[in-house]
Amino acid sequence: MNLEKAIFGRRSVRNYSSKILEKKHLKELLDAGIWAPTAGNIQPWVFVCVTHTKRIQQIHTVSPGMLGNPQALICVCSDQNRAVEKAGPGGRTLAIMDCAMAAQTIMLFAYGLGMGTCAIRSFNPSAVRELISAPAHIHPELLITVGYPAESPKPPARKKDVFFWELYNEKEGKKDDE
Amino acid sequence: MNLEKAIFGRRSVRNYSSKILEKKHLKELLDAGIWAPTAGNIQPWVFVCVTHTKRIQQIHTVSPGMLGNPQALICVCSDQNRAVEKAGPGGRTLAIMDCAMAAQTIMLFAYGLGMGTCAIRSFNPSAVRELISAPAHIHPELLITVGYPAESPKPPARKKDVFFWELYNEKEGKKDDE
Repeated sequence: MNLEKAIFGRRSVRNYSSKILEKKHLKELLDAGIWAPTAGNIQPWVFVCVTHTKRIQQIHTVSPGMLGNPQALICVCSDQNRAVEKAGPGGRTLAIMDCAMAAQTIMLFAYGLGMGTCAIRSFNPSAVRELISAPAHIHPELLITVGYPAESPKPPARKKDVFFWELYNEKEGKKDDE
Repeated sequence: MNLEKAIFGRRSVRNYSSKILEKKHLKELLDAGIWAPTAGNIQPWVFVCVTHTKRIQQIHTVSPGMLGNPQALICVCSDQNRAVEKAGPGGRTLAIMDCAMAAQTIMLFAYGLGMGTCAIRSFNPSAVRELISAPAHIHPELLITVGYPAESPKPPARKKDVFFWELYNEKEGKKDDE
Protein backbone atom coordinates (compact mmCIF):
# COMPACT_ATOMS: atom_id res chain seq x y z
CA MET A 1 0.00 0.00 0.00
CA ASN A 2 0.96 3.58 -0.62
CA LEU A 3 2.39 5.37 2.45
CA GLU A 4 0.18 8.43 2.08
CA LYS A 5 -2.94 6.30 1.68
CA ALA A 6 -2.03 4.41 4.88
CA ILE A 7 -1.36 7.54 6.96
CA PHE A 8 -4.55 9.31 5.91
CA GLY A 9 -6.74 6.22 5.65
CA ARG A 10 -5.96 4.37 8.90
CA ARG A 11 -8.78 4.53 11.45
CA SER A 12 -9.21 3.13 14.93
CA VAL A 13 -11.36 0.01 14.53
CA ARG A 14 -13.69 -0.99 17.35
CA ASN A 15 -15.71 -3.70 15.61
CA TYR A 16 -13.98 -6.75 14.20
CA SER A 17 -15.17 -9.59 11.97
CA SER A 18 -14.70 -13.24 12.94
CA LYS A 19 -12.23 -13.79 10.10
CA ILE A 20 -9.18 -15.56 11.50
CA LEU A 21 -5.86 -13.71 11.61
CA GLU A 22 -2.89 -15.70 10.44
CA LYS A 23 0.01 -15.82 12.87
CA LYS A 24 2.45 -15.04 10.06
CA HIS A 25 0.70 -11.72 9.48
CA LEU A 26 0.84 -10.90 13.20
CA LYS A 27 4.55 -11.73 13.09
CA GLU A 28 4.95 -9.29 10.20
CA LEU A 29 3.38 -6.55 12.31
CA LEU A 30 5.93 -7.09 15.07
CA ASP A 31 8.76 -7.19 12.53
CA ALA A 32 7.63 -3.75 11.32
CA GLY A 33 7.29 -2.35 14.85
CA ILE A 34 10.94 -2.84 15.74
CA TRP A 35 11.95 -0.46 12.94
CA ALA A 36 10.47 2.52 14.72
CA PRO A 37 13.03 5.09 15.89
CA THR A 38 14.38 4.50 19.38
CA ALA A 39 16.41 6.89 21.55
CA GLY A 40 20.03 5.74 21.77
CA ASN A 41 19.05 2.50 19.98
CA ILE A 42 17.85 1.24 23.38
CA GLN A 43 14.86 -0.59 21.86
CA PRO A 44 13.09 -0.77 25.21
CA TRP A 45 10.06 -2.56 23.72
CA VAL A 46 8.74 -6.04 24.29
CA PHE A 47 5.70 -7.35 22.42
CA VAL A 48 3.43 -10.03 23.81
CA CYS A 49 0.95 -11.13 21.19
CA VAL A 50 -2.17 -12.74 22.65
CA THR A 51 -4.45 -14.75 20.37
CA HIS A 52 -6.15 -17.15 22.78
CA THR A 53 -9.76 -16.12 23.18
CA LYS A 54 -9.88 -16.82 26.90
CA ARG A 55 -6.87 -14.65 27.67
CA ILE A 56 -8.12 -11.84 25.43
CA GLN A 57 -11.37 -11.93 27.42
CA GLN A 58 -9.46 -11.87 30.70
CA ILE A 59 -7.48 -8.84 29.57
CA HIS A 60 -10.74 -7.27 28.41
CA THR A 61 -12.09 -7.39 31.97
CA VAL A 62 -9.27 -5.07 33.12
CA SER A 63 -9.32 -2.89 29.97
CA PRO A 64 -12.38 -0.62 29.88
CA GLY A 65 -11.11 0.89 26.64
CA MET A 66 -11.22 -2.36 24.69
CA LEU A 67 -14.06 -2.84 22.22
CA GLY A 68 -15.15 -5.05 19.38
CA ASN A 69 -14.04 -8.69 19.82
CA PRO A 70 -10.51 -8.45 18.40
CA GLN A 71 -8.85 -11.61 17.08
CA ALA A 72 -5.56 -10.69 18.73
CA LEU A 73 -4.04 -8.29 21.22
CA ILE A 74 -0.53 -6.95 21.04
CA CYS A 75 0.64 -5.88 24.49
CA VAL A 76 3.32 -3.28 23.83
CA CYS A 77 5.46 -3.24 26.95
CA SER A 78 8.61 -1.46 28.02
CA ASP A 79 11.47 -3.32 29.66
CA GLN A 80 12.22 -0.91 32.51
CA ASN A 81 15.62 -2.46 33.19
CA ARG A 82 16.72 -1.83 29.61
CA ALA A 83 15.05 1.59 29.57
CA VAL A 84 16.95 3.01 32.56
CA GLU A 85 20.21 1.08 32.18
CA LYS A 86 21.48 3.36 29.43
CA ALA A 87 19.33 6.46 29.83
CA GLY A 88 18.92 6.79 33.61
CA PRO A 89 15.60 7.83 35.19
CA GLY A 90 14.69 9.83 32.05
CA GLY A 91 14.58 6.50 30.26
CA ARG A 92 11.05 5.96 31.53
CA THR A 93 9.63 8.73 29.32
CA LEU A 94 11.85 7.78 26.38
CA ALA A 95 10.52 4.22 26.62
CA ILE A 96 6.91 5.45 26.51
CA MET A 97 7.72 7.44 23.37
CA ASP A 98 9.54 4.55 21.73
CA CYS A 99 6.67 2.17 22.48
CA ALA A 100 4.17 4.67 21.06
CA MET A 101 6.19 5.05 17.85
CA ALA A 102 6.46 1.27 17.51
CA ALA A 103 2.70 1.02 18.05
CA GLN A 104 1.90 3.55 15.33
CA THR A 105 4.29 1.74 12.98
CA ILE A 106 2.46 -1.54 13.69
CA MET A 107 -0.95 0.06 13.18
CA LEU A 108 0.02 1.61 9.84
CA PHE A 109 1.53 -1.65 8.63
CA ALA A 110 -1.57 -3.57 9.73
CA TYR A 111 -3.76 -1.19 7.73
CA GLY A 112 -1.57 -1.88 4.72
CA LEU A 113 -2.30 -5.60 5.14
CA GLY A 114 -6.05 -5.01 5.35
CA MET A 115 -6.25 -5.44 9.13
CA GLY A 116 -7.83 -3.07 11.61
CA THR A 117 -6.30 -1.96 14.90
CA CYS A 118 -7.04 0.24 17.87
CA ALA A 119 -4.61 1.51 20.49
CA ILE A 120 -5.97 1.06 24.01
CA ARG A 121 -4.54 3.10 26.86
CA SER A 122 -7.34 2.59 29.35
CA PHE A 123 -6.37 -0.57 31.23
CA ASN A 124 -4.90 -1.72 34.53
CA PRO A 125 -1.19 -2.25 33.82
CA SER A 126 -0.56 -4.44 36.88
CA ALA A 127 -3.48 -6.71 36.03
CA VAL A 128 -2.37 -7.00 32.39
CA ARG A 129 1.19 -7.73 33.53
CA GLU A 130 -0.12 -10.56 35.70
CA LEU A 131 -2.31 -11.99 32.93
CA ILE A 132 0.65 -12.22 30.55
CA SER A 133 2.90 -13.61 33.35
CA ALA A 134 5.38 -10.77 33.02
CA PRO A 135 7.80 -9.78 35.81
CA ALA A 136 7.71 -6.40 37.53
CA HIS A 137 10.21 -4.70 35.20
CA ILE A 138 7.99 -5.33 32.17
CA HIS A 139 5.51 -2.47 32.01
CA PRO A 140 2.48 -2.69 29.68
CA GLU A 141 2.35 0.71 27.95
CA LEU A 142 -0.29 0.16 25.27
CA LEU A 143 -2.58 -2.58 24.04
CA ILE A 144 -3.30 -2.85 20.33
CA THR A 145 -6.43 -4.74 19.32
CA VAL A 146 -6.06 -6.46 15.95
CA GLY A 147 -8.52 -8.10 13.58
CA TYR A 148 -10.20 -7.72 10.24
CA PRO A 149 -12.54 -4.74 10.41
CA ALA A 150 -16.30 -5.20 10.40
CA GLU A 151 -16.79 -1.43 10.02
CA SER A 152 -15.37 1.48 8.05
CA PRO A 153 -15.08 4.28 10.62
CA LYS A 154 -15.49 7.80 9.28
CA PRO A 155 -12.56 10.20 9.65
CA PRO A 156 -12.77 11.93 13.04
CA ALA A 157 -12.62 15.73 13.07
CA ARG A 158 -9.08 17.08 13.14
CA LYS A 159 -7.94 20.42 14.55
CA LYS A 160 -6.25 22.52 11.90
CA ASP A 161 -5.21 25.39 14.16
CA VAL A 162 -2.23 23.55 15.65
CA PHE A 163 0.43 24.54 13.09
CA PHE A 164 2.67 27.49 13.86
CA TRP A 165 5.70 28.93 12.10
CA GLU A 166 8.88 30.12 13.79
CA LEU A 167 7.10 31.02 17.05
CA TYR A 168 4.11 29.74 18.98
CA ASN A 169 0.88 31.33 17.80
CA GLU A 170 2.46 32.68 14.59
CA LYS A 171 0.29 31.47 11.75
CA GLU A 172 2.67 32.39 8.97
CA GLY A 173 6.00 33.32 10.54
CA LYS A 174 7.52 36.75 10.41
CA LYS A 175 9.57 37.27 7.26
CA ASP A 176 11.93 39.76 8.91
CA ASP A 177 12.49 37.64 11.96
CA GLU A 178 16.11 36.67 11.27
CA MET B 1 6.25 5.62 -1.74
CA ASN B 2 5.31 2.15 -0.62
CA LEU B 3 4.41 1.87 3.08
CA GLU B 4 6.64 -1.14 3.71
CA LYS B 5 9.59 0.54 2.04
CA ALA B 6 9.10 3.61 4.22
CA ILE B 7 8.83 1.68 7.50
CA PHE B 8 11.89 -0.46 6.85
CA GLY B 9 13.93 2.15 5.00
CA ARG B 10 13.56 5.22 7.24
CA ARG B 11 16.72 6.06 9.18
CA SER B 12 17.61 8.80 11.64
CA VAL B 13 19.57 11.38 9.64
CA ARG B 14 22.26 13.40 11.42
CA ASN B 15 23.90 15.06 8.44
CA TYR B 16 21.89 17.29 6.13
CA SER B 17 22.65 18.89 2.77
CA SER B 18 22.22 22.61 2.16
CA LYS B 19 19.35 21.99 -0.26
CA ILE B 20 16.47 24.28 0.66
CA LEU B 21 13.28 22.76 2.03
CA GLU B 22 10.10 24.15 0.57
CA LYS B 23 7.58 25.38 3.11
CA LYS B 24 4.79 23.59 1.25
CA HIS B 25 6.54 20.27 1.92
CA LEU B 26 6.95 21.09 5.60
CA LYS B 27 3.25 21.93 5.70
CA GLU B 28 2.52 18.50 4.18
CA LEU B 29 4.45 16.86 7.01
CA LEU B 30 2.31 18.61 9.62
CA ASP B 31 -0.85 17.70 7.71
CA ALA B 32 0.22 14.04 7.92
CA GLY B 33 1.10 14.25 11.63
CA ILE B 34 -2.40 15.19 12.75
CA TRP B 35 -3.74 11.89 11.39
CA ALA B 36 -1.92 9.88 14.03
CA PRO B 37 -4.19 8.14 16.52
CA THR B 38 -5.04 10.18 19.60
CA ALA B 39 -6.66 9.01 22.83
CA GLY B 40 -10.25 10.26 23.07
CA ASN B 41 -9.65 12.38 19.96
CA ILE B 42 -8.01 14.93 22.29
CA GLN B 43 -5.32 15.85 19.73
CA PRO B 44 -3.09 17.38 22.41
CA TRP B 45 -0.40 18.27 19.89
CA VAL B 46 0.90 21.63 18.73
CA PHE B 47 3.59 21.93 16.05
CA VAL B 48 5.96 24.88 15.84
CA CYS B 49 7.99 24.67 12.68
CA VAL B 50 11.24 26.65 12.85
CA THR B 51 13.11 27.43 9.63
CA HIS B 52 15.05 30.57 10.52
CA THR B 53 18.72 29.68 10.81
CA LYS B 54 19.36 31.89 13.80
CA ARG B 55 16.57 30.36 15.86
CA ILE B 56 17.56 26.82 14.86
CA GLN B 57 21.05 27.63 16.14
CA GLN B 58 19.64 29.04 19.37
CA ILE B 59 17.62 25.87 19.93
CA HIS B 60 20.72 23.85 19.07
CA THR B 61 22.58 25.42 22.00
CA VAL B 62 20.04 23.90 24.43
CA SER B 63 19.69 20.59 22.54
CA PRO B 64 22.77 18.39 22.98
CA GLY B 65 21.10 15.69 20.89
CA MET B 66 20.83 17.83 17.76
CA LEU B 67 23.25 17.14 14.94
CA GLY B 68 23.86 17.88 11.29
CA ASN B 69 22.71 21.40 10.32
CA PRO B 70 19.03 20.71 9.67
CA GLN B 71 17.08 23.06 7.39
CA ALA B 72 14.10 23.02 9.72
CA LEU B 73 13.03 21.94 13.18
CA ILE B 74 9.58 20.77 14.09
CA CYS B 75 8.94 21.30 17.80
CA VAL B 76 6.28 18.76 18.70
CA CYS B 77 4.61 20.11 21.83
CA SER B 78 1.69 19.04 23.98
CA ASP B 79 -0.95 21.51 25.08
CA GLN B 80 -1.20 20.55 28.74
CA ASN B 81 -4.51 22.35 29.20
CA ARG B 82 -6.09 20.30 26.42
CA ALA B 83 -4.34 17.13 27.61
CA VAL B 84 -5.74 17.18 31.14
CA GLU B 85 -9.08 18.89 30.45
CA LYS B 86 -10.66 15.69 29.14
CA ALA B 87 -8.38 12.99 30.47
CA GLY B 88 -7.41 14.24 33.94
CA PRO B 89 -3.88 13.86 35.34
CA GLY B 90 -3.35 10.71 33.24
CA GLY B 91 -3.62 12.96 30.20
CA ARG B 92 0.04 13.86 30.60
CA THR B 93 1.22 10.38 29.59
CA LEU B 94 -1.45 10.08 26.89
CA ALA B 95 -0.19 13.36 25.40
CA ILE B 96 3.40 12.08 25.31
CA MET B 97 2.21 8.98 23.45
CA ASP B 98 0.07 10.96 21.03
CA CYS B 99 2.95 13.35 20.28
CA ALA B 100 5.30 10.40 19.70
CA MET B 101 2.84 8.77 17.29
CA ALA B 102 2.42 12.05 15.42
CA ALA B 103 6.21 12.39 15.25
CA GLN B 104 6.68 8.91 13.78
CA THR B 105 3.91 9.65 11.25
CA ILE B 106 5.72 12.86 10.25
CA MET B 107 9.07 11.09 9.96
CA LEU B 108 7.69 8.31 7.78
CA PHE B 109 5.92 10.80 5.54
CA ALA B 110 9.09 12.90 5.25
CA TYR B 111 11.04 9.84 4.17
CA GLY B 112 8.42 9.24 1.48
CA LEU B 113 9.08 12.77 0.18
CA GLY B 114 12.85 12.20 0.10
CA MET B 115 13.57 14.19 3.26
CA GLY B 116 15.57 13.05 6.25
CA THR B 117 14.55 13.48 9.87
CA CYS B 118 15.79 12.71 13.36
CA ALA B 119 13.80 12.75 16.60
CA ILE B 120 15.61 14.60 19.36
CA ARG B 121 14.70 14.00 22.98
CA SER B 122 17.80 15.43 24.58
CA PHE B 123 17.02 19.12 25.07
CA ASN B 124 16.01 21.59 27.75
CA PRO B 125 12.21 21.89 27.43
CA SER B 126 11.95 25.18 29.33
CA ALA B 127 14.66 26.78 27.18
CA VAL B 128 13.02 25.56 23.96
CA ARG B 129 9.65 26.81 25.19
CA GLU B 130 11.15 30.25 25.74
CA LEU B 131 12.89 30.29 22.35
CA ILE B 132 9.59 29.60 20.55
CA SER B 133 7.74 32.10 22.79
CA ALA B 134 5.32 29.49 24.07
CA PRO B 135 3.36 29.85 27.32
CA ALA B 136 3.82 27.50 30.28
CA HIS B 137 1.06 25.07 29.28
CA ILE B 138 2.80 24.28 25.97
CA HIS B 139 5.32 21.54 26.68
CA PRO B 140 7.97 20.66 24.05
CA GLU B 141 7.96 16.84 23.92
CA LEU B 142 10.18 16.14 20.92
CA LEU B 143 12.17 18.02 18.34
CA ILE B 144 12.34 16.68 14.81
CA THR B 145 15.22 17.85 12.64
CA VAL B 146 14.32 18.01 8.94
CA GLY B 147 16.36 18.42 5.78
CA TYR B 148 17.54 16.61 2.71
CA PRO B 149 19.99 13.90 3.79
CA ALA B 150 23.70 14.19 3.05
CA GLU B 151 24.24 10.62 4.23
CA SER B 152 22.65 7.17 3.89
CA PRO B 153 22.83 5.73 7.40
CA LYS B 154 23.14 1.96 7.66
CA PRO B 155 20.38 0.04 9.40
CA PRO B 156 21.14 -0.11 13.14
CA ALA B 157 21.10 -3.53 14.80
CA ARG B 158 17.68 -4.60 15.94
CA LYS B 159 16.84 -7.00 18.79
CA LYS B 160 14.85 -9.96 17.53
CA ASP B 161 14.24 -11.58 20.92
CA VAL B 162 11.45 -9.18 21.90
CA PHE B 163 8.49 -11.08 20.41
CA PHE B 164 6.47 -13.36 22.67
CA TRP B 165 3.28 -15.30 22.14
CA GLU B 166 0.41 -15.58 24.62
CA LEU B 167 2.67 -15.06 27.66
CA TYR B 168 5.86 -13.17 28.40
CA ASN B 169 8.93 -15.23 27.57
CA GLU B 170 6.96 -17.76 25.49
CA LYS B 171 8.66 -17.91 22.12
CA GLU B 172 5.93 -19.88 20.36
CA GLY B 173 2.91 -19.92 22.65
CA LYS B 174 1.49 -23.07 24.19
CA LYS B 175 -0.97 -24.78 21.86
CA ASP B 176 -2.97 -26.26 24.74
CA ASP B 177 -3.17 -23.04 26.66
CA GLU B 178 -6.86 -22.32 26.11
